Amino acid sequence: MKLSNKVLAMEHSPIRKFNAIAQKANEAGKKVYYLNIGQPDVETPACFMEAIRAFDEKVIAYAESGGVAALQDAISGYFRQYGMEYERENIIVTNGGSEALSMTFISLLNPGDEVLIPEPFYTNYHTFVTMADGVIVPITTTPEEGYHYADAEKIEAAITPKTRAICCISPGNPTGNVLTLEEIRLIGEIAKKHDLWIIADEVYREFAYDGRPATSFGMAEELADRVIIIDSVSKRFSACGARIGCIVSKNEELLDNLMKIAQGRLCSPTVEQIGAEALYKLSKSYYDEIRAEYEARRDVVYKELMKIPGVVCQKPGGAFYLTAKLPVDNVEEFLMFLLTEFDDQGETVMFAPAEGFYATPGLGKEEMRIAYVLNRKDMARGVELIRLGLEAYNRR
Amino acid sequence: MKLSNKVLAMEHSPIRKFNAIAQKANEAGKKVYYLNIGQPDVETPACFMEAIRAFDEKVIAYAESGGVAALQDAISGYFRQYGMEYERENIIVTNGGSEALSMTFISLLNPGDEVLIPEPFYTNYHTFVTMADGVIVPITTTPEEGYHYADAEKIEAAITPKTRAICCISPGNPTGNVLTLEEIRLIGEIAKKHDLWIIADEVYREFAYDGRPATSFGMAEELADRVIIIDSVSKRFSACGARIGCIVSKNEELLDNLMKIAQGRLCSPTVEQIGAEALYKLSKSYYDEIRAEYEARRDVVYKELMKIPGVVCQKPGGAFYLTAKLPVDNVEEFLMFLLTEFDDQGETVMFAPAEGFYATPGLGKEEMRIAYVLNRKDMARGVELIRLGLEAYNRR
Repeated sequence: MKLSNKVLAMEHSPIRKFNAIAQKANEAGKKVYYLNIGQPDVETPACFMEAIRAFDEKVIAYAESGGVAALQDAISGYFRQYGMEYERENIIVTNGGSEALSMTFISLLNPGDEVLIPEPFYTNYHTFVTMADGVIVPITTTPEEGYHYADAEKIEAAITPKTRAICCISPGNPTGNVLTLEEIRLIGEIAKKHDLWIIADEVYREFAYDGRPATSFGMAEELADRVIIIDSVSKRFSACGARIGCIVSKNEELLDNLMKIAQGRLCSPTVEQIGAEALYKLSKSYYDEIRAEYEARRDVVYKELMKIPGVVCQKPGGAFYLTAKLPVDNVEEFLMFLLTEFDDQGETVMFAPAEGFYATPGLGKEEMRIAYVLNRKDMARGVELIRLGLEAYNRR
Repeated sequence: MKLSNKVLAMEHSPIRKFNAIAQKANEAGKKVYYLNIGQPDVETPACFMEAIRAFDEKVIAYAESGGVAALQDAISGYFRQYGMEYERENIIVTNGGSEALSMTFISLLNPGDEVLIPEPFYTNYHTFVTMADGVIVPITTTPEEGYHYADAEKIEAAITPKTRAICCISPGNPTGNVLTLEEIRLIGEIAKKHDLWIIADEVYREFAYDGRPATSFGMAEELADRVIIIDSVSKRFSACGARIGCIVSKNEELLDNLMKIAQGRLCSPTVEQIGAEALYKLSKSYYDEIRAEYEARRDVVYKELMKIPGVVCQKPGGAFYLTAKLPVDNVEEFLMFLLTEFDDQGETVMFAPAEGFYATPGLGKEEMRIAYVLNRKDMARGVELIRLGLEAYNRR
C-alpha cells in the first residue's frame, strides 16, 4: 500500500523539531526558556469560558455549516469597527485559521498550480498548499532589508502562467513585517494586472506597533472581488485551543463553492463558537491593552538582541515574532549546543531555526525565529541566554 | 480568477437541498416532520458539559496535535472493551469523523487515484475524496438485495490498477447495512490480494440490532497493517456539534505521515476534547440503553413503511438510517409535492432523496433515506405521512 505523493512531500513541524531534545534538557534539570512556539502566556478573556459555561442546550447539535449566526454577526460587528462591511453571507466560520487556509487553497488550486508567498513564511503554508496538490513559489526576502517584499519587480519576477494567488500574512509570522495601506494597494495592483486571488492572512491584525494602524486588504475597496481574508481568535484573544477562525470574502462564487467544503465537514465546533462570539464582541480597548503588552515585549527583545555583536535584524513592526540573522554558520548546530552543552546558572534557551521557514534550499541557515510570548523579564533573560550561549559557542 | 476543478466538481449537500422549501412550508403554518438529517434528538450525556464547565485553565492553549493524552487514553480504553488494543501513538484525534476522513484520503490518494465505496454512500465522501483529487468508484448495491456488498465478485469487478483503498461504513449510512465479522474478513482478503488500504468508517459501531454484536475491522488481526478506523463521538454520544473524532491505525508509516497534516492544522479544539474524554469513558450500559431506543424506533419505522404498497426495503440491521424504494418514478418530485401541495391535518414530512447518495448517474431516483432520529411517535407519524402523501400523489 502506498501513501500519496502529497503527504510524503509534507514535512513534520520544524518548530517542534527540537522539542524532544529540549525535553531532555528539561529532564536533566535545566530550565529552558521556550521562545520557539507561538503559544502566548496571556490569559484568554474570561468571557470565553463564561459564555461556554452558560451554554445549556441538552443536545450538542450540529451548528450551521457556515457558522452559528450569532458568531457571524459578532465577526461582522468586529470588522465594522474598521469600516469594513461584511454580512453573514460573507463569513464562513472554520476550525481555526488553519482550516480557513486549507479550504481556500483547495478551492483555488489544481494540481501544479502556484501560489506566491514571501519567504520566510509560516511553515504550515507548505502543508496546506501541498494538501491541495499546489506548489509554493517563494518571493525571497532578506534580514538585511527587514524582510520587505512589497516590491513590484520582486513580486512580478515570480509570476508564471501557473500562478493563481498571492498569499500575504500581515502582520507577519515569522518576520513581524507589517504592510501599510499603500503597500496593500501596490500588491493589489499586481494581483489585478495578473488576475490573481489575494489570500490575506490577517490573524495578527491588531499587533501593529509604533503607532502603525491596523490595516487590512479588506480596506482596499477596488480589490473586493479578489480578496480572501483569513481571520482567527487564536492570537488576538490568546485562544489558540479554541480552533475558531473564519474566511471573509465578497466574492459570491468563491463563497458558494467554499460552502460545499464547509457542508462536507458539517460544521465547526458548536460550544467553541459560543465562546468565540463573546471574544469577537470585546471592545477595542482590549486590543489596546494587549498591543501595549506585546509592544513592550518586542522592545525588550529587540534591545537585548542588539547587544549581540554581528546580529542582523530590522526592528519588526508587528505580530509577536522576530526573525534575525545570527553570527553563526548553522543555527541548528548552535541550538543543539544550547540545549545539550550550554547552560548559564542552570538555564538555557530554545528558539525556532529559520531554515524550515524558507522554500528555497539553503536559505535561512543563519537565521532564527523568536516568539515573544513570555513576560518581559523572561524574554529579556531568554535573549540574554542566546548572547551568553553565542559567547560560549565561539569559545569552544 | 479561476476556482479549482476539484471544488467545482463538489456538490452542495443533497440532504439540505430541500431545506429552503421545507422552511417555506413551515412558515406557511405546516408542521414538517424532518426525517432527512442525522441529528439525533437524544440528549448528550451530561458528563460532556460537566467536564467542560469544570475546565479552569486560564489560557485556552493549543492541545497536542495528535490529541490530548487523557482523551487518547479514554479512546484506548473504549477500544479495549472490545478486545482491540490501541495505544496513544495509534490514535490521532481529529475535528470529527469528517476531518479523519479528509486527512485519510489526502494521505492515500494521488490525483486520479481511485477509492472503492459501496453505493448508495454517505454523500460527503464525494467531497472528501474530491478534496484529495481522487475518484470514487462505486460498488453498486440494490434495495432488492438489502444493499448487500460483501461479495468478492462484485467488489473485484470494480478494482483497477488505480484502486488504492476500499472504504466501508458499517453500520452503514444511508442503508443501515451491518457487516458481520465473516464479511469483514472476506473484504479483508480482497484488500490483501489487491494490496488495498481499508478505510473502516465505524462511527455507528454500537448501533447494531437484533442481537448483532458490534463488529470492527480492528477485530481482524490479519488486517492490522492496512486498516484505518474512523471513529467519532457524534452519533454514539449524540454529540454531533462537538466535532471530535479520531483516526485509529496500527500502520506506523501512515500514522507518521498523518501527523504531518495534524501538526499543520495544529490541533483539535481543546475544550471539546475535555468533554469527549468524559464521553469515551462511559460504561457499556450507556450503549445498551441507546441501542434499545434506536432499535425500537427502527421497528416502528419499518412496520409503518411495510404498510405502503409497493415499497422495497429489507429490514436494516443498524445505524439509524433506512433507505427504501418508493413506488414513484421520481422521489424528488414526490418530495416537492409533499412540501408544497400536500398536508394531512396541517402536517407533512421531509426525507432525503437518495439520488445524491449514488455516484452512478440515474440510480436512486426511486429511493429515499429516512433518519430515525425522532421519538417513536413522531417517527410513526412521519412515515404515515409518507403513506398518506403517496395516496394523495397517486390520486392527482
